Amino acid sequence: MTRADRAQLAMMLEVCAFPKPGNVDRCHDYAETRLEHFLASTILSRRALEKAERGEGCIGELILDAVERTNVHSGGNTHFGAFILLIPLICGGDIPGACRIVSETTVDDAILFYKAFGKTRVRVLKDDELDVNDPGAVDELKERRMTLYDVMLYSARNDMVAREWINGFALTRRGADLLQSYDGGCGAVVGTFMDLLSTEPDTFIIKKHGRDIAWEVMKKAREVREGTRDIVRFDQELIDAGINPGSIADIILASLYIALGEGWQWDC
Amino acid sequence: MTRADRAQLAMMLEVCAFPKPGNVDRCHDYAETRLEHFLASTILSRRALEKAERGEGCIGELILDAVERTNVHSGGNTHFGAFILLIPLICGGDIPGACRIVSETTVDDAILFYKAFGKTRVRVLKDDELDVNDPGAVDELKERRMTLYDVMLYSARNDMVAREWINGFALTRRGADLLQSYDGGCGAVVGTFMDLLSTEPDTFIIKKHGRDIAWEVMKKAREVREGTRDIVRFDQELIDAGINPGSIADIILASLYIALGEGWQWDC
Repeated sequence: MTRADRAQLAMMLEVCAFPKPGNVDRCHDYAETRLEHFLASTILSRRALEKAERGEGCIGELILDAVERTNVHSGGNTHFGAFILLIPLICGGDIPGACRIVSETTVDDAILFYKAFGKTRVRVLKDDELDVNDPGAVDELKERRMTLYDVMLYSARNDMVAREWINGFALTRRGADLLQSYDGGCGAVVGTFMDLLSTEPDTFIIKKHGRDIAWEVMKKAREVREGTRDIVRFDQELIDAGINPGSIADIILASLYIALGEGWQWDC
Repeated sequence: MTRADRAQLAMMLEVCAFPKPGNVDRCHDYAETRLEHFLASTILSRRALEKAERGEGCIGELILDAVERTNVHSGGNTHFGAFILLIPLICGGDIPGACRIVSETTVDDAILFYKAFGKTRVRVLKDDELDVNDPGAVDELKERRMTLYDVMLYSARNDMVAREWINGFALTRRGADLLQSYDGGCGAVVGTFMDLLSTEPDTFIIKKHGRDIAWEVMKKAREVREGTRDIVRFDQELIDAGINPGSIADIILASLYIALGEGWQWDC
């Protein structure tokens, strides 16, 4: 199995797993973004993932390529956060390799990344100095000589996906270990998702709904783990309120990629 | 979008569509074969589909390659019937091209096809002279100088997928036209599936459960179309009885491939 195969399997397994409170899964769509959109992106990202495997192009180019290839359907952004993690993991081969890759990114990577960001409809904080919708942001990047690593360092405070670049893919690693701690692959994705959801405030929820809601979700997820809250009802409650832990989903996807490479069996 | 992309999108859209009475879909698994197995096969068949697109190898080799690449999970056969239709359609570019390709198949194609067949657990009729489980079948093919087209001609009586090779992909064409007759992509797959299910006895059901059951399914599907039977309950009834119209699913998948190539929009 190639790295591109593994990345696509990880994308597929992540989105299908059910019940995964608040997120698109095989039983839930969002109005604009459906299961099929996630799976179409999984298929259509193939050549960008293969380029990453062959080391063709810098990280910024590869993320831009993946975004452009998956921007062709009506479902909007599906995997921007996932590509931020997957592309260096594929290029580097493993977590130590990815850490080396991200530390070597350049100002050009940052500029290409902002170009990719501009093609998505990903939520940004309103008071963000380096707002991706601001045409001046690229000048700002050049003037400050910020590499893509610097951008992630700058974003890490408010974004747990960016934080992975800075902290050695710590949650990705934890997720991969958790996946492998479950008996059999079937329930492992949901179990790992709930493990992270009950211990980490999701920064995508924070950006969209504020810190209090993110903390409440974490608390309720802990109640699910403790057996005092029903997971299917909790799932529906989040879906109805439009609260989706999208950043934890991105990290689980990266964890799946690592676990598959370490021999984890998804279909037992 | 490449032909391989289109084939993979067709595979994904077919298996996800719900409710699709009796078959695996986003809301139903079979005990041994789950949604994820179908989607993993969709991903892992990529390189065989690309080879078909580049015209690398004969039809028999390409079908064997696709079967071998997708035989790596525990879900058993997922797409054997689909590959019998997709591979010539990809190689030939369209239905007339596929008709030319299948008419030019050789005895070697037939031998390779039997090798592929032997690697699946596809149901065969017990009194079939050319039983794929019989090691003498290959000698028989050689002796009779049967090409793969001849094998399909021989099987056409009892197998609606084989029949497509003989009749100019007639049901594939009808399915593609039906898909394009619906407003928007969302309900079109289910609508087309029900259109075929209510007018054609599924030969996979006939092989497994006999002709009477297949006729009863067709009659009940017609009642669904007429609004006197509930589709979700009918779906559950078939799932519970292990009655899956697998051959119609294969044909719908080929229809999706053709419709996508003719500009049909799946995500509107």
